[in-house]
Amino acid sequence: MHKFDVSSIKALTFDVFGTVVDWRSTVIQEMEQLGEAKGIKADWSRFADDWRIKGYISATARVQRGELPWMNVDRLHRIMFDELLIEFGVTGLDEAEKDHLNRVWHRLKPWSDVIGGLKRLRKQYLLSTLSNGNIALLTNMAKNAGLPWDCILSSELARCYKPDPLVYQVAVDLLGLLPNQVMMVAAHKGDLQGARSIGMKTAFIPRPLEYGPVLKENTADEPWLDLYATDFNELAKKLGA
Amino acid sequence: MHKFDVSSIKALTFDVFGTVVDWRSTVIQEMEQLGEAKGIKADWSRFADDWRIKGYISATARVQRGELPWMNVDRLHRIMFDELLIEFGVTGLDEAEKDHLNRVWHRLKPWSDVIGGLKRLRKQYLLSTLSNGNIALLTNMAKNAGLPWDCILSSELARCYKPDPLVYQVAVDLLGLLPNQVMMVAAHKGDLQGARSIGMKTAFIPRPLEYGPVLKENTADEPWLDLYATDFNELAKKLGA
Repeated sequence: MHKFDVSSIKALTFDVFGTVVDWRSTVIQEMEQLGEAKGIKADWSRFADDWRIKGYISATARVQRGELPWMNVDRLHRIMFDELLIEFGVTGLDEAEKDHLNRVWHRLKPWSDVIGGLKRLRKQYLLSTLSNGNIALLTNMAKNAGLPWDCILSSELARCYKPDPLVYQVAVDLLGLLPNQVMMVAAHKGDLQGARSIGMKTAFIPRPLEYGPVLKENTADEPWLDLYATDFNELAKKLGA
Repeated sequence: MHKFDVSSIKALTFDVFGTVVDWRSTVIQEMEQLGEAKGIKADWSRFADDWRIKGYISATARVQRGELPWMNVDRLHRIMFDELLIEFGVTGLDEAEKDHLNRVWHRLKPWSDVIGGLKRLRKQYLLSTLSNGNIALLTNMAKNAGLPWDCILSSELARCYKPDPLVYQVAVDLLGLLPNQVMMVAAHKGDLQGARSIGMKTAFIPRPLEYGPVLKENTADEPWLDLYATDFNELAKKLGA
């Protein structure tokens, strides 16, 4: 049980990929459908994992190190997608098909506890995204999946990527709140450490299936976390919503 | 009847003060309640009009001319509010009361056609604010009034004020769209001229009561407008929603 005064919290900001949505299942499913329609055989699970881990995660880190100029996630995803198509020997896609597939990240589906938990939380707190995904991606995803955000905030507004402290500070300022009035919710401890570095509150939600059956994130509770909840319904309960 | 291809439009961006919400009635009502509770007599209609017209409109223009540093609308409202309290001889408010009253702009109520019209439009289009009001103000207003936006965009993200073309360009870029895929909806022709200058589509909604019974905005149709609708329900109808 963490010591923590719930009454100070006015807003919750949510990491999205992995925390809110199950990116892996949706990406694999759409790639498999493409493969069937086009008669292409490939290891689509590995394609999805490479797109996410070697591609997105390392690409945003390269932007942070100054090795790539600022680009939003739609752009980064597309650059990596084009490279992976070559690596996996996928041919015969026209530009409209490539653009559509690159936007699979706009169509990701939430974990089963998310919509119900957010609806409860929204009655009591202001709910926002705070994702490395760009505003258009997050807005289209919310509209497609029915995610009930009060507003859409993104690293794009700070033109750098989490866990850069500037991302969290820009979000808190735009919400017109103090850092300790805002709780960051994420399935990734590095994200929560970034939020904590500017004084935000932190809630960890384990998503042990985010990376599929093999790769495992460390989902253990930690003394520095303000809150640990097994899913969004338990988060709502622990926050009195 | 304007010539105009509806099928190109993907998103609508809305001016808020005057176009979506009836700022004057809400501000006057809260000031009157304050006056009664505190036993203060003043011309609250004139207070509201001065806060809006001499204050907000001229203050954002001063920021645009470089006579004031960048400040968001919550800050500008508060500076003007403190000046008006002196001018109108209102005394006896503590800091919490002043802060609460300054946030009356977060609690404005929509015109009667707005919620119904937006709900229809949202089924077919992405709906966003594009207001000089800051993100926190617009988010709190939406939550309070039940305005069903898909995302909250503001001049604050460009750190300059409408009708600076940069505000519209930043919004279109964040939506991941081209200017001619986005329609600006406003009750003010200067706002629509700013949007049009970067290639956005324009819809004018007359709000003849925005400034009360005396001051009248020019609400006539113009050949350069892409669409003219008497309210949000007619806007939905004309956009096939």
